[in-house]
Amino acid sequence: MKHLMNPLDFTVEELNQLFDLANDIEANMDKYAHVCAGKKLATCFYEPSTRTRLSFEAAMLNLGGSVLGFSEASSSSAAKGESVSDTIRVVSCFADICAMRHPKEGAPMVAASRSSIPVINAGDGGHQHPTQTLTDLLTIRSMKGRLDHFTIGLCGDLKFGRTVHSLINALVRYEGIQFIFISPRELMVPDYVTDMLKEKNIPYEEVIRLEDIMPKLDLLYMTRVQKERFFNEEDYVRLKDFYILDKLKMQLAKPDMLVLHPLPRVNEISVEVDEDPRAAYFKQVQYGVYVRMALILTLLNIHVN
Amino acid sequence: MKHLMNPLDFTVEELNQLFDLANDIEANMDKYAHVCAGKKLATCFYEPSTRTRLSFEAAMLNLGGSVLGFSEASSSSAAKGESVSDTIRVVSCFADICAMRHPKEGAPMVAASRSSIPVINAGDGGHQHPTQTLTDLLTIRSMKGRLDHFTIGLCGDLKFGRTVHSLINALVRYEGIQFIFISPRELMVPDYVTDMLKEKNIPYEEVIRLEDIMPKLDLLYMTRVQKERFFNEEDYVRLKDFYILDKLKMQLAKPDMLVLHPLPRVNEISVEVDEDPRAAYFKQVQYGVYVRMALILTLLNIHVN
Amino acid sequence: MKHLMNPLDFTVEELNQLFDLANDIEANMDKYAHVCAGKKLATCFYEPSTRTRLSFEAAMLNLGGSVLGFSEASSSSAAKGESVSDTIRVVSCFADICAMRHPKEGAPMVAASRSSIPVINAGDGGHQHPTQTLTDLLTIRSMKGRLDHFTIGLCGDLKFGRTVHSLINALVRYEGIQFIFISPRELMVPDYVTDMLKEKNIPYEEVIRLEDIMPKLDLLYMTRVQKERFFNEEDYVRLKDFYILDKLKMQLAKPDMLVLHPLPRVNEISVEVDEDPRAAYFKQVQYGVYVRMALILTLLNIHVN
Repeated sequence: MKHLMNPLDFTVEELNQLFDLANDIEANMDKYAHVCAGKKLATCFYEPSTRTRLSFEAAMLNLGGSVLGFSEASSSSAAKGESVSDTIRVVSCFADICAMRHPKEGAPMVAASRSSIPVINAGDGGHQHPTQTLTDLLTIRSMKGRLDHFTIGLCGDLKFGRTVHSLINALVRYEGIQFIFISPRELMVPDYVTDMLKEKNIPYEEVIRLEDIMPKLDLLYMTRVQKERFFNEEDYVRLKDFYILDKLKMQLAKPDMLVLHPLPRVNEISVEVDEDPRAAYFKQVQYGVYVRMALILTLLNIHVN
Repeated sequence: MKHLMNPLDFTVEELNQLFDLANDIEANMDKYAHVCAGKKLATCFYEPSTRTRLSFEAAMLNLGGSVLGFSEASSSSAAKGESVSDTIRVVSCFADICAMRHPKEGAPMVAASRSSIPVINAGDGGHQHPTQTLTDLLTIRSMKGRLDHFTIGLCGDLKFGRTVHSLINALVRYEGIQFIFISPRELMVPDYVTDMLKEKNIPYEEVIRLEDIMPKLDLLYMTRVQKERFFNEEDYVRLKDFYILDKLKMQLAKPDMLVLHPLPRVNEISVEVDEDPRAAYFKQVQYGVYVRMALILTLLNIHVN
Repeated sequence: MKHLMNPLDFTVEELNQLFDLANDIEANMDKYAHVCAGKKLATCFYEPSTRTRLSFEAAMLNLGGSVLGFSEASSSSAAKGESVSDTIRVVSCFADICAMRHPKEGAPMVAASRSSIPVINAGDGGHQHPTQTLTDLLTIRSMKGRLDHFTIGLCGDLKFGRTVHSLINALVRYEGIQFIFISPRELMVPDYVTDMLKEKNIPYEEVIRLEDIMPKLDLLYMTRVQKERFFNEEDYVRLKDFYILDKLKMQLAKPDMLVLHPLPRVNEISVEVDEDPRAAYFKQVQYGVYVRMALILTLLNIHVN
């Protein structure tokens, strides 16, 4: 039985199969409308995350399956002191597959080790959020036709953002990737990331201002810069506009550059950018459903001809 | 694409079609049992409202569709600062139609303007609650056979009650309607309502005591009088019994007068009235499901022969 | 119309039919996969209980029905002062059967008296939790082949544990049952229980230490001993280990003794016991789904050949 804990749990070849399946689903939704009839997905969310939970639920419903679960810890048995191991053994009696979000790093891993059904890590603290990474990769592959030979800019909070670290780890497996990290000094990528890139001989650059490198980028991955991450108010006021993407900055970009964002956004992408054909962040949401559908089928070992 | 923000979004003719459909659904539930197969309703409730949410969910399930969503803001991305516009664009990727309740007036309208799926206003602050008004109208039409030529008493809090204002605005479009407003002085209908009635030459009366006008009424619409609305405790104690409907007051009423109430009630209708055949408030709940079924079909543009 | 308020609502003969049905469901899940198509279960949980709620939802989904409801009081109309009687009359318009959990004793009974759909008591305060008792009985009957002629040990908090009292009341209807109560003095079974046993001439023993009577037991029903139940810290420290089941104590037991627990557990059964073939507490969860499926079919009067 296979679980999904980390985006690297799948080899590049397995990912290709997953993405092929997701694209076939996109093109032929009707063919998949009943393939999970009688199957149940449990959404075990120990902390709220509406977007991720609804994406999983939409995915399962699109496959003809059904859904049960909880959306916050207070209404779960965890409040009575039950361990995650016990909860998953119980949930295994109720459902065929489980998507688990937990504030503690490693909790889904513990669950998977005791589970008799496939477990999907739907986010564990600041650690992993593999279905977001699969979503990002599928969006790029679907809209660009490939996952190699890109210059990708990652902008914003590169220190704490788990989606950024996950995406970097996933992309280094493809050829010809070049990274440009755009962030304030306080929020630069951690050393272990740049050390890994040096070791693998993968080119990267670190810059402070988004404008400076816009023309170079094939892909721009935006994230939110939270005020409270800065050392002082002064720095925040001085720097924050460097990390807000607006129409003016978009004029500097290539005509086919894609803008990605894991959402929710607050103000780091101006709404005026939404109608730009290069804005791909709402399409990401749609690809997130397709990739979760493909993932559920893959982990349940359901094959459709 | 059509949304429902306000009960007046539909013309009288469109309402007639909607109510005809609702009555056909009532008479032939089986015919409609699978017409929304594969369709998903998102219930986006930024404040809790079990009755309204469950009514929408029952409606969609009765049509063979499925449901996903959230039942309070704390478990939504709003807590992370996401705008309603972004949320609806995301939800558009998960569902085919959305029912949204929001504490802020106008929020569902903002959502509708950015949505790629039909949005139903399921209540926005003290502003509108159009499916309640549709429910009220369908109940009257179904049980009385018409929506014109009535004397209707509206009793209780006529100042703040949005369901009352909505119903008045909906009924003035029909001929021969006469209003009797029964309320303490503190909770009388606002001037803009009576001004509108004068302008349209629609007769109305304002009285303090329910007993005095019971014999005249064809319909009695009860609402709750909240203690905290009164200027002083003394007035509350002196007046409150005027607005409690009991068996004794029902003896003064016509034998075919209907009692309506948007529910939940607290004590403004004595439970001894429940078994009176003129009590229509629990039937309203049932009509609320039928009218929401008709509404979902209409907004999704699904036609059944 | 039949409700389930108390495990004794069913005669021994009716229970046998229910358990036969549950075992047929276990053996032939596919046969039952669509028998509730178009039916809706309302889960009205005025206090959270994930395990019980999900078990009901899994049961209804396994039968091809669908589910709606609420999982805590704050998101229900109760917060607006609605009575349980009114809520159930409203819910009757939305669903075909209702599972209700409520912190107040007797609330589901009040609901049932006004309901036009079958109501299942899913736990009312410290009072009753009949589907847990049905689960316990089905587990014993399925794994042992009978419900009579057993020596059963009940261990832990026997004073406040409602599942224990319910199970005792259910088992005294079968022949040849012998009880051994294992608990600290503070948490012994109440007098009205032992009085009832004396009156019926049913043998029982009361002991302090689990080890002492392990070899005698055919069944061991564990419950949690909460620290706050003890009169003083000293007693708690001195006694608590007597009530923790571990590998060592299991060595004293018969090779076919079953260990049951209503779950969730905290530490009263050491995890090292989980893999012992005599550990039946996770199997109980599975039987809980089967018995709820059988119960839903029985109360909805649906017969499958």
